Amino acid sequence: MDNTTETALIMLPGPVPVAPQVLRALSKPMINHRGPEFRRLLDESREKLRGVFKTESDVLILNGSGTCAMEAAVGNLGTDKRYIALENGKFGERLKSLTALYGSSMAVIADWGTSIEVEQVKQALETGADAVTLVHNETSTGMTNDVQQIGALCRKRDALLIMDGVSSIGGIQAPIDRWGVDIAFTGSQKCLGLPPGLSMISVSDRAWDVIKTAEKRPYYADLLAHREAAEKGQTPYTPAMPLFFALEEALKLLEVEGLEARIDRYSVYAESIRTAVQAMGLELFPKLGPSSAYSNTVTAIKVPPKLEFMALKEAMERRGIVIAGGQERLKGHIFRIGNMGNLSKGDILQVIEKLELILLENGIVDAMGAGTLAADCVLEGS
Amino acid sequence: MDNTTETALIMLPGPVPVAPQVLRALSKPMINHRGPEFRRLLDESREKLRGVFKTESDVLILNGSGTCAMEAAVGNLGTDKRYIALENGKFGERLKSLTALYGSSMAVIADWGTSIEVEQVKQALETGADAVTLVHNETSTGMTNDVQQIGALCRKRDALLIMDGVSSIGGIQAPIDRWGVDIAFTGSQKCLGLPPGLSMISVSDRAWDVIKTAEKRPYYADLLAHREAAEKGQTPYTPAMPLFFALEEALKLLEVEGLEARIDRYSVYAESIRTAVQAMGLELFPKLGPSSAYSNTVTAIKVPPKLEFMALKEAMERRGIVIAGGQERLKGHIFRIGNMGNLSKGDILQVIEKLELILLENGIVDAMGAGTLAADCVLEGS
Repeated sequence: MDNTTETALIMLPGPVPVAPQVLRALSKPMINHRGPEFRRLLDESREKLRGVFKTESDVLILNGSGTCAMEAAVGNLGTDKRYIALENGKFGERLKSLTALYGSSMAVIADWGTSIEVEQVKQALETGADAVTLVHNETSTGMTNDVQQIGALCRKRDALLIMDGVSSIGGIQAPIDRWGVDIAFTGSQKCLGLPPGLSMISVSDRAWDVIKTAEKRPYYADLLAHREAAEKGQTPYTPAMPLFFALEEALKLLEVEGLEARIDRYSVYAESIRTAVQAMGLELFPKLGPSSAYSNTVTAIKVPPKLEFMALKEAMERRGIVIAGGQERLKGHIFRIGNMGNLSKGDILQVIEKLELILLENGIVDAMGAGTLAADCVLEGS
Repeated sequence: MDNTTETALIMLPGPVPVAPQVLRALSKPMINHRGPEFRRLLDESREKLRGVFKTESDVLILNGSGTCAMEAAVGNLGTDKRYIALENGKFGERLKSLTALYGSSMAVIADWGTSIEVEQVKQALETGADAVTLVHNETSTGMTNDVQQIGALCRKRDALLIMDGVSSIGGIQAPIDRWGVDIAFTGSQKCLGLPPGLSMISVSDRAWDVIKTAEKRPYYADLLAHREAAEKGQTPYTPAMPLFFALEEALKLLEVEGLEARIDRYSVYAESIRTAVQAMGLELFPKLGPSSAYSNTVTAIKVPPKLEFMALKEAMERRGIVIAGGQERLKGHIFRIGNMGNLSKGDILQVIEKLELILLENGIVDAMGAGTLAADCVLEGS
């Protein structure tokens, strides 16, 4: 699809549609990144982000995508740490790789898209660990993991908890402090509704104590350098100014809508998508267990037997809608619909309607209507 | 200065004034970062950047500022390397820190703003080294170092040459291949006239041979991962889309102007600034030697005895012009005027005129006119 008319509906689990106000803010001329105007912007944004993270801890802004913050979370703790890495999807696996790169790592692995067994985590923690890594919302599988239980276990065993909140913070309930999360991070191109390019990371006092004594830290993603600069209203290296202008605007929009209203809205969108695809006879990918739930920001659906993923994707794109496939081992097996960013109920309905039409054309449903009706009922609460 | 009217003239050595076409490109709606449209953009941009770097090597684009690329340049070579780090300014010092963080480092140090002695480098190389790090254009001191001689020494001794081209590539002659540079990098917010946020890095075959066998590489700035993704028209992690849209536009503008014309224009701007400030009795900061020259992208000037830097800076800002001070040990001693980005001859004249006015008000010059006349003569070639 050639998007020269700029009308494509981006239903990816990031990047997401960006509100026009936020897009316009990107175009502001440069300012002095060491001056009072930038200081005000940075101070206010960090303060508002503390509200989004529901934390009293420092929130720092990194000039890099979510993976930059993910590396910062692990890389700043020093090279002598023992990790327990929880994996049930691609991003859990990435965290596992990072823990092995920077320390010694033991993994608790569940099949991608199935629940992590809390009992296994408990047992693993008994062998002694400095930190546990966990993905709150697995963008790769459409599954939300239970952080609260893991947080309680970590507190009991005095292990730090590192949480990937890339596709949850600001869109799914994720009270960082209440859950006892020590390091949490998100990316700009998800629930905050910004373009990609920035990531935000919170660091608890417990985590700072470890970071301060780390014998070696990365340079560009050095969290202490970021904190030191932030105290002066600066970033340690030149900030990606347009994204900071956009962040200011996106946080204003979030404030106007309200964090809880945003979370509710995403949950209604996701539920309507789940209900609709099931009404059309499709199957959701995640196998829920006692410590997991369907994601309210990204829905992963099994590709129906009579259809190839690429055919489905292209048929949707011809109709102006961009969806995502599965990643790595899930390639071809699932498709994913994100519902973050600047979306309306009408957008959600449109996606379902086009999907239903394609299913009809391919003989997967017999008639139009069941999907859109189901979606509409959830969206309108009737 | 509150820039609510967005008219400030940003004469910093980065960020720089960004052309309106480039600013507008930032506001384009998101596209699929794994689709053909992004692939075309990335392929074309990388190809054009090879021209800007004057290299046949791979040029990769990182989602991070110049320091991200600087860390990538050193961090990807493995942890067993012996470096010779050349330092005569803040960014040489930063490279020295990175070489010590990732390998073992020996430094050849000259006072900030003075020449590096090539003979010393030659002697240091005789002790054996895997790589030499050097800043082409020291943004912190307004001095350009001679890379060609160092490149020849490195080739003779089979050491890799890592060059910081952040404030030179695209604005000062820097033929990467001809000079035998193995890894060179630049940032978006300098000669390319973009906002900050991206960095570009070239890697020679010799350097790839080392990188491929490195026992450990950083994750976010993993150059092999970037190359692998680039071959598929992608970035390994979600790209900062608006900055890529802007890059496409900025490279078009550079193509229209022509690289050599851009380099000439910057050199006329810088010469006019140097000539003018000296005509007003001010002193340039760099002490030139046999292996250095004045920078054609940033001019560093000693703060005159009868004036405080902050008073000068604020007086300029009240008149709508943003200049930079000295960094770290040079704080208060020098001020710096960048001449990169979307600037016209009129902008340069305006800067000189305002500076002259402030010098007059402070009794540093007796009359107006000498500075602007000198600047005008150089600008108009008369």
